[in-house]
Amino acid sequence: MNTPRQALVHRLPASAPDDVTALVQAVDRGEIDPRAIVAVLGKTEGNGCVNDFSRGLATQALKHAIARLARRDLDDVARDVAFVMSGGTEGGLSPHWLVFEVRDAPAAPATPAAPPVQASRAGATAAGPATEGVATLAIGVAITPAFLPEEIGRMPQALRTAEAVQAAMRAAGIADARDVHYVQVKCPLLTRARIEQAYGRGRDVATEDTYLSMGYSRGASALGVALALGEVSADALSDARVCRDAGLYSGRASTSAGIELMENQIMVLGNSTAWRSDYIVGHGVMRDALDVDAVDTALASVGLRMGGELRGPGRERVAAVLAKAEPSQTGAIRGRRHTMLDDSDIHASRHARALVGGVLAGVFGETQLFVSGGAEHQGPDGGGPVAVIARRGP
Amino acid sequence: MNTPRQALVHRLPASAPDDVTALVQAVDRGEIDPRAIVAVLGKTEGNGCVNDFSRGLATQALKHAIARLARRDLDDVARDVAFVMSGGTEGGLSPHWLVFEVRDAPAAPATPAAPPVQASRAGATAAGPATEGVATLAIGVAITPAFLPEEIGRMPQALRTAEAVQAAMRAAGIADARDVHYVQVKCPLLTRARIEQAYGRGRDVATEDTYLSMGYSRGASALGVALALGEVSADALSDARVCRDAGLYSGRASTSAGIELMENQIMVLGNSTAWRSDYIVGHGVMRDALDVDAVDTALASVGLRMGGELRGPGRERVAAVLAKAEPSQTGAIRGRRHTMLDDSDIHASRHARALVGGVLAGVFGETQLFVSGGAEHQGPDGGGPVAVIARRGP
Amino acid sequence: MNTPRQALVHRLPASAPDDVTALVQAVDRGEIDPRAIVAVLGKTEGNGCVNDFSRGLATQALKHAIARLARRDLDDVARDVAFVMSGGTEGGLSPHWLVFEVRDAPAAPATPAAPPVQASRAGATAAGPATEGVATLAIGVAITPAFLPEEIGRMPQALRTAEAVQAAMRAAGIADARDVHYVQVKCPLLTRARIEQAYGRGRDVATEDTYLSMGYSRGASALGVALALGEVSADALSDARVCRDAGLYSGRASTSAGIELMENQIMVLGNSTAWRSDYIVGHGVMRDALDVDAVDTALASVGLRMGGELRGPGRERVAAVLAKAEPSQTGAIRGRRHTMLDDSDIHASRHARALVGGVLAGVFGETQLFVSGGAEHQGPDGGGPVAVIARRGP
Amino acid sequence: MNTPRQALVHRLPASAPDDVTALVQAVDRGEIDPRAIVAVLGKTEGNGCVNDFSRGLATQALKHAIARLARRDLDDVARDVAFVMSGGTEGGLSPHWLVFEVRDAPAAPATPAAPPVQASRAGATAAGPATEGVATLAIGVAITPAFLPEEIGRMPQALRTAEAVQAAMRAAGIADARDVHYVQVKCPLLTRARIEQAYGRGRDVATEDTYLSMGYSRGASALGVALALGEVSADALSDARVCRDAGLYSGRASTSAGIELMENQIMVLGNSTAWRSDYIVGHGVMRDALDVDAVDTALASVGLRMGGELRGPGRERVAAVLAKAEPSQTGAIRGRRHTMLDDSDIHASRHARALVGGVLAGVFGETQLFVSGGAEHQGPDGGGPVAVIARRGP
Repeated sequence: MNTPRQALVHRLPASAPDDVTALVQAVDRGEIDPRAIVAVLGKTEGNGCVNDFSRGLATQALKHAIARLARRDLDDVARDVAFVMSGGTEGGLSPHWLVFEVRDAPAAPATPAAPPVQASRAGATAAGPATEGVATLAIGVAITPAFLPEEIGRMPQALRTAEAVQAAMRAAGIADARDVHYVQVKCPLLTRARIEQAYGRGRDVATEDTYLSMGYSRGASALGVALALGEVSADALSDARVCRDAGLYSGRASTSAGIELMENQIMVLGNSTAWRSDYIVGHGVMRDALDVDAVDTALASVGLRMGGELRGPGRERVAAVLAKAEPSQTGAIRGRRHTMLDDSDIHASRHARALVGGVLAGVFGETQLFVSGGAEHQGPDGGGPVAVIARRGP
Repeated sequence: MNTPRQALVHRLPASAPDDVTALVQAVDRGEIDPRAIVAVLGKTEGNGCVNDFSRGLATQALKHAIARLARRDLDDVARDVAFVMSGGTEGGLSPHWLVFEVRDAPAAPATPAAPPVQASRAGATAAGPATEGVATLAIGVAITPAFLPEEIGRMPQALRTAEAVQAAMRAAGIADARDVHYVQVKCPLLTRARIEQAYGRGRDVATEDTYLSMGYSRGASALGVALALGEVSADALSDARVCRDAGLYSGRASTSAGIELMENQIMVLGNSTAWRSDYIVGHGVMRDALDVDAVDTALASVGLRMGGELRGPGRERVAAVLAKAEPSQTGAIRGRRHTMLDDSDIHASRHARALVGGVLAGVFGETQLFVSGGAEHQGPDGGGPVAVIARRGP
Repeated sequence: MNTPRQALVHRLPASAPDDVTALVQAVDRGEIDPRAIVAVLGKTEGNGCVNDFSRGLATQALKHAIARLARRDLDDVARDVAFVMSGGTEGGLSPHWLVFEVRDAPAAPATPAAPPVQASRAGATAAGPATEGVATLAIGVAITPAFLPEEIGRMPQALRTAEAVQAAMRAAGIADARDVHYVQVKCPLLTRARIEQAYGRGRDVATEDTYLSMGYSRGASALGVALALGEVSADALSDARVCRDAGLYSGRASTSAGIELMENQIMVLGNSTAWRSDYIVGHGVMRDALDVDAVDTALASVGLRMGGELRGPGRERVAAVLAKAEPSQTGAIRGRRHTMLDDSDIHASRHARALVGGVLAGVFGETQLFVSGGAEHQGPDGGGPVAVIARRGP
Repeated sequence: MNTPRQALVHRLPASAPDDVTALVQAVDRGEIDPRAIVAVLGKTEGNGCVNDFSRGLATQALKHAIARLARRDLDDVARDVAFVMSGGTEGGLSPHWLVFEVRDAPAAPATPAAPPVQASRAGATAAGPATEGVATLAIGVAITPAFLPEEIGRMPQALRTAEAVQAAMRAAGIADARDVHYVQVKCPLLTRARIEQAYGRGRDVATEDTYLSMGYSRGASALGVALALGEVSADALSDARVCRDAGLYSGRASTSAGIELMENQIMVLGNSTAWRSDYIVGHGVMRDALDVDAVDTALASVGLRMGGELRGPGRERVAAVLAKAEPSQTGAIRGRRHTMLDDSDIHASRHARALVGGVLAGVFGETQLFVSGGAEHQGPDGGGPVAVIARRGP
């Protein structure tokens, strides 16, 4: 039988995109084991669009810092740790890092007195000793094979993403898709050179517009997550529906495109009885940008209640909030016109992050929120998934 | 004895800064009497900063429309109706007009069954027939004499604003300052020519920077409101404290500077038993941008409760929400860094409106919110007043 | 025989989008006859993109001012005067109005001693008394029928624009297309409602994207100009080539899309011996944004030389400069990468206007330049037409 | 007697802020000796303002690349090579690096047939063998002691900068200040912590505004350059005149503030007979943003003529162009209003770079121009220095 693992989440402030002080200090204090880090998700203060160099600067700084702290080779760190930087801290969003660790669980139960949170609401049993049956935060990672340019934004990308999500679930010890609450995907995009390469082999591509290719890649990846989690059926999917049929989506996917890779890198967050973590994760799906009921759902699924506990001590149990934001394509929110799509000074996705960031900041009393843009097939039009990672209650 | 008056508030959508369709339709339907309009507050979709031409366009369009609808001379409309345009619909804020009317009350009580809302919690009596003792929305306007350039942003502006606020209270039939919940002030700014005029008479000015002069004018005006409402004492005020001592503020002032006037135009909103309106007004003071408790306070003062009613039918009773937003000068919100002040692409005040707009939109489930920037001495640093006008309950 | 006409051009400063002071003063001084105004082209200080309200504000202010000055009905002014506002004064461009008048020529020759400038270099004779044979600034206007939504951005728009350009040439007394140097076209765009109207009749449209429809309309209109002027042949044109074949273009078209019309309004500027103007017009075609040789061409065609006269007294003879600017779609200028297309903070067209504005400002020593964006089929990729109107030499 | 040195300048394209490909290739081809690099000046594609992370990213990438190529320790590279990144490629400016090398001159004269360019026009003799008397590009670097926070933006910074400029001149073998054509200074700024440190010792600072402190530091540094070069006299300077008396300036200073240092780093570019470079440098002072005559002056001083040679083969002799750009504080250029200072969407310095970049691009037919902003006391209001480095003629 395998040694049980534990997942840790650290939310650290950043005073600049290349400020790794808090990370170094947490390692110095023994709170973070730099060799156990599997992923860093970061909000950085660029524009979150094409010319956002805060993301690259942050990734560089984090990579060098972890290599130094863990005394590992830079290339090994680049290979083994997922770095997902989301640019854009509009409104009051606060730049921060979410550092994820996976360690072997200590011999003694981490939190012996913790009340059971049942895995997969439909059927899982939580019998036996409390700590054995308790489903706690589980992390699984997986990677697809590299895509050809012509596969990006199309079914091959979706299908192989679905397979990789399932591999990541297995790696995390999660059997039931309902126990998955958040799937981060980092996916490739098309460049001029990649398009030419496809043409050279007589193939066409999903789009010739390199900027749009980011959306197609995010969209196909999100549909792959939806397929893996049973949110859509395989026969509902086709190349023609990517970025066109907004009715198809995952309520748990968060996908992000980058130039530096040709494969999809997947990180699944869920709850599993195979883990001995001090955290649990839950989620809701915001129907629109103002849908605080979805936050209630997410909170309830981790044992917190908004109106009551969240204004009191429950607030401190929230370890991380992850959400997607996009302007509704209808141009309206609950029948009221918004101006995001007509603003040629500020990109629509920046307005959307500011709005959702404000809505969530009001609920959580907190601005260190991982709100990212680019939500093709990640939640309904104008809405999106919101996941909450919480420390387990007393 | 005077005929009782009634105040009406109409919240109308705008599909562009010069779109007066909804106003015309409301007049056509008999809902608005164009000759009774005393003020229009508008959110328009410019940047809310120096080069925001959406405000001028809106004012032009509204002025012409009201003159036409009321068959009045353009100059008379310009003189008798206050037009306060607040630029900036960042995040999801929705462009809209708040049209205020003052009419003679109909002979029969407007809402005979309405429960009493007591005027001035400390001492006011609500005896007699329900409708007589009920304090409902009251509007009073007043105007200061024109200022000299050297008086702008200094004590003369503050002191005469205080006098005008008290005149507006009397006009509104409000005796107790505690019954005032919102004071809108439109105030002048310095231009190069006005500064030269002061110099020509051997006087100096509060600032040579014409942009900064807007802040000084707003600040001194807000301190005048604070003085009138007993929020600060006269001996706490001096020229040197304007825009410097953030501890001095009004929790009910909303001031806005414009180039087109040299006096201060004041509109007081409060509750008075001398009125027979179907609306009441209340307010709270946000301690910071996330302070939803202040919204609770504002709601409670108009007989609504957030957690419960506001998610249900109570939501429809909210007729208008007016709030101020400014970035905290500490660079942090509840200890978390924000990036508003360091963003050279998007003006800090735009971030602040997006944030407060998002927080309030989450609470109210509504994006037609009058959130304006430039909050010198209007609430504490990083916070600000939030006023709610509600239809009276059943 | 017709009374000869004269065309006048006035370049007036604007201290704000609604500042008509200079116009009023010029009328007061007797320099402008408000009833003779046929067009006002203006540079206003908005962003020149979707949410640019400086254009609407300027048009409103000008329309009201001209109606008042000319004691004409507002609707008549709106019908008879073309208002073309180009937003965006990036770099050092200076907001200004170009006011065009058409009057009956005075009985005595305007400038008896002026040296002849020959009309149509190939063949026109300039015999007879100098002033009779002299080709001077001629203005002709024409209008197409209203387009159906499905015709916008397609061949019907191009073909009827070509017919209207020829009608405007006739109206201007210009027989030879080579005597045309600048064709301003104001054209419609698609809105959601217009698209639905086409769908309702079973038609499709050039694009469903309302923003892109502006480009299609400008492009088809420019191709119509090119056809009328013999720059492209009819069989080279097809719906499929609009906004796709950058090799097809007019070197003299400047087209601009607006929401307020469904027809194309055309103004042709050229030289004609039928006129007795004190001005002549010429043009060049910039091959790229740095192509100052094209300015030489334009200057030479109005009898000025850059290196010499333009740094001396010749500079004062330049009455107006009109140019188009667009980022090269290759992402490079003379092999050097530009960053216009990857900037998510500043729209590419704003960079392009700043660049071309700077290049021309260096040449002309002047920033009151009518540089506008949106140059589909108006000059080669990354380049564009540049026209110069000059006072005739001594 | 010392071995003569030679200075080399390489202008390399950058496809992104962290793209060092061209540098690596130049080293691979043997064109650049990575151990001889003394400075890299770069234009990067950020906003050039507070939140421009393209500069940090570029510096990081260059530092790592040079350390790797030169097989040197990262800290040694950071100490020995000056990295000056100027953000902002508005208009058509093209991101690029200017790599400066200093090597021992080869035994044989570099360009035996080169015509003499006389050092210091007033008095220097150019007798003896041609190559001996020829003044060619000379580079000198120096560094001040670290400043205390209270010294930044004040006379101590100016005076010690002047001393360091003279030290750098000596290091470059330049005796006559007239042979200095460009002085790059990298200087510190104030942070909150540094201000507190000064307060802790009972000292005040030039400004409490950390953003403004950049201007004060640049200004005091530029005045130090002016003093060293005899452009202003010591008794004309005082703390009170820094950033206030625009009549005091250097026509050859280019200063830039960064957070990473507390001293001033100085690089002097001039011509000296002690060097055997293939390059010479010259400069002019633009009186305003359109002053192309100043470019003539700069070109003439390196033996090129604008009208003629620069449009022909002379263009290829231009190796680098370095200029400063700032909006005129009068709000006008040659009497025409500009809108830079009133634009709340695009920072004024971005407009200014776009404008000067456009003017110079038209002259040079080239967009790889090092145009930087923040020109306090660097040239007259609205103007600035322009330096040209050219390959020596045949």
